[in-house]
Parts: sequence; structure tokens; C-alpha cells
Amino acid sequence: MTTGAKAIVLLSGGLDSATVLAIASRDFACHAISFNYSQRHCSELQAASRLAQIAGASQQIIQLDEGVMTGSALTDATIEVPETGPGEGIPVTYVPARNTVFLAHALAVAEVQGSSDIFIGVNAVDYSGYPDCRPDYIAAFEHMARLATKAGVEGGKLKIHAPLINMSKAEIISTGIQLGVDYALTVSCYQADSQGRACGLCDSCRLRRNGFAAASVPDPTVYRQPQI
Amino acid sequence: MTTGAKAIVLLSGGLDSATVLAIASRDFACHAISFNYSQRHCSELQAASRLAQIAGASQQIIQLDEGVMTGSALTDATIEVPETGPGEGIPVTYVPARNTVFLAHALAVAEVQGSSDIFIGVNAVDYSGYPDCRPDYIAAFEHMARLATKAGVEGGKLKIHAPLINMSKAEIISTGIQLGVDYALTVSCYQADSQGRACGLCDSCRLRRNGFAAASVPDPTVYRQPQI
Repeated sequence: MTTGAKAIVLLSGGLDSATVLAIASRDFACHAISFNYSQRHCSELQAASRLAQIAGASQQIIQLDEGVMTGSALTDATIEVPETGPGEGIPVTYVPARNTVFLAHALAVAEVQGSSDIFIGVNAVDYSGYPDCRPDYIAAFEHMARLATKAGVEGGKLKIHAPLINMSKAEIISTGIQLGVDYALTVSCYQADSQGRACGLCDSCRLRRNGFAAASVPDPTVYRQPQI
Repeated sequence: MTTGAKAIVLLSGGLDSATVLAIASRDFACHAISFNYSQRHCSELQAASRLAQIAGASQQIIQLDEGVMTGSALTDATIEVPETGPGEGIPVTYVPARNTVFLAHALAVAEVQGSSDIFIGVNAVDYSGYPDCRPDYIAAFEHMARLATKAGVEGGKLKIHAPLINMSKAEIISTGIQLGVDYALTVSCYQADSQGRACGLCDSCRLRRNGFAAASVPDPTVYRQPQI
């Protein structure tokens, strides 16, 4: 049973955010927000809508200007998504300031809807090396957000919840399974096709597949070709 | 003469941001960004384009989703802009998380363009009581931004410049006049008409008019009706 309080949940349609939505739904009435940022894998948005509907959450798809978060393999068709496994440093799939832009919108939506709780599925263990997935970053955003808003000035305690931040991918999957998440509906692949079928080769596919194996859960992902 | 380094300048088209563009242009090659957020006073965007052109800055108008920063007198035609002077507390012209959304986009643009310098015309003296105009807020955003980005991780020192933050409106105007800003081109009014003509009654018009008087500078604003 929820308390009736409303939470804003960033829902990409992938494995992590689907799990976060399930976690948030235990305690809150959830409003999911998803972003169309001209991402290569826009079939994740269809997955997000299905996941929100099944969870009983309202959903809003926010259109971002396509001229802003450019220069990434996820937003520029001329930059190839790496298929040979994670390398050193920050990968070319990093999208400039993505979580900051997403959380800024979530903050506006939270303020309009009178919510003090924002959920995001960042994870600092089995992740792709993105700077805006680290605990220090989330804490800094929360501090800034409390100063930024009318609610903060009036004594409200806006909270950024990142319940997955210290979990392994296997722990995330085990948690989601317990909460009834249907991972067959989620799309994690950076280059999923229009039907949401995964490549099995990009970093996101590798992390996901390894997570199912480590959690001893059958992988429900639909791949475009047979996996070795 | 500029150093050739690039700065991203938030340019609304109003008096403050026009002054900031002039200040930033002394040291940087400027890229101005302006936002269409379904604001009532969208003629400010035409002003912004003229100001950028005259300053020799490139400009990008970023389209925001109209379903996000709602519930303000500036974005909701059913909420009237107050015309009787500033009241207590945060006014109805406050736009939820506006500067956070703007700065988040600026951060993405800065990262894509390889810039470490973002300029914003916030002001904590003669201002409208908005929480996201205070020095603490700007410092917190800068701290967060350094953690958020690839440039920050790699040792870059992203800086949020807020050169007006401790200046009175009269000081801002005097500074701009010295730098050659043509304030006749700027639009500050919250309910400027399609030709950029000001109401003379909203908080923004009052702050602006008082600023010209205090600076002993003739007010070049074009009003819709004669001012008393």
C-alpha cells in the first residue's frame, strides 16, 4: 500500500528503471517521466509506456531539443556503438549532461505536481563508467535542487532516491523478480531495433546478460541473432 | 580581444542577460542559448536574436517541452501577471526549476562544444525573489556540474559565471552602457506584446524602470501606454 504521496520516477524503459519503478511503487503513487532525446534506441520509449501502464503509473514523455545532447554514439548515427566490450575511461555512448538534463526536468515536474521525491535508476557498480551515475553526483544534485526550488525555500525536503546505486546488476534483477517485474518487457540495448530486439554485443547488453547469469535467472531478452 | 576560448551565455533577451553577453564578450567567443518554453513574453526571443547578432555571438534557440514548466503566470495564460508591485514571498511569476533546466542544457551544450565557461544573468539584489537566483544556488549548481560531466572527471574546471549576482539594477545598467549595450533592443516585460512593447506595471518592468532612474540613464523602453 502506498502512502498516497506522489513520486516522480525517471523511466527509460530499461532494466534498471523498471526495477526502480517497482521499488518506488511500494511506497508512492508514481508519475513516470521518459525522454525522447533522439536516442538511437527509441524503442525503449514503447517499453517505458508498457511498464508504466502495468505498474499503474501515470506517464509523460518529454520531448528534448535534438540539437543539445549531441556527439554521443547514442544520439549521432555516424558514431558507432562499440561491440567489443567495455574499454578504458568514459565510453562514446556517454551522452553529455544527460542525467542532469533529465533530473532538472524531473525537478520541474515534481515542483508542479507537489512531489518531494524523485527516483532515478543510476548504478555505480555494474555500469558503463558514466560520471553522472556516481553517488557524489546524486548527492550534489539533491543539494542543488533543495536550493533551487520554491518548495526547498519553504522548508520542503526534496529527495533524490537512487535505490540501485550500490547494487550489482544481479542484485537489481533479483530485487525486481521479487517485486514482479517482467524483464521481457524492458529494452536495455543501445541499438535495439524498432521492435526492441537487442544486439547482444553493446556494453549495455553485456552488463544485462551477465546480470541474469549471475542472478541465476533465465535471460528473457529477445535478441536479433542467436547468442553464443 | 578575446582569448579565443568559448563561453556559453544564457541569453533571454532581457536587460540582465544582454549585459552579461557584453561582459562575457570581453574575454570569450560567445555562443548564446535562448529557450522557447511557451513563455507569455516570447517576443524576448526576437530580442535575444538581435542582441546575439550585434554582439557577434552565435545563437541557438532551444525548444523545451511545453508540458514541463507549467503552473506559472509566465507559462499559463489563466494566471494573471501581478501589476500592483512586488508582494511577500515567491511570486506567481516564478517558473518551476527554470534556471536548473536552463543551466542543465547549457552544461550539455558546453560539454559538446568543449567550453568550460557558462554565463548566467542572475541577480540577488534587485530581483523578484526567485530561489534559483541566489549565490548559494549557483555555487551548488557549479559543484554538481563538475561531478556530472566527462570534462569534470578528466580534470576540467567548469565555471558558472554570474557577474551580476551582487549588483543593483542601476549598477547593471551603468556597466552595460559602458560596454555599449543598446537597451532599447532588450525586452524585460513579463507580458510584452508581440512587438516587444512593455506593460510598465509588472515586477520586471518596475525593477527595470527604477534601475534606469537610479542610474540616471534615460529609459529607452517602448511602453504600450504612456508611463506616469
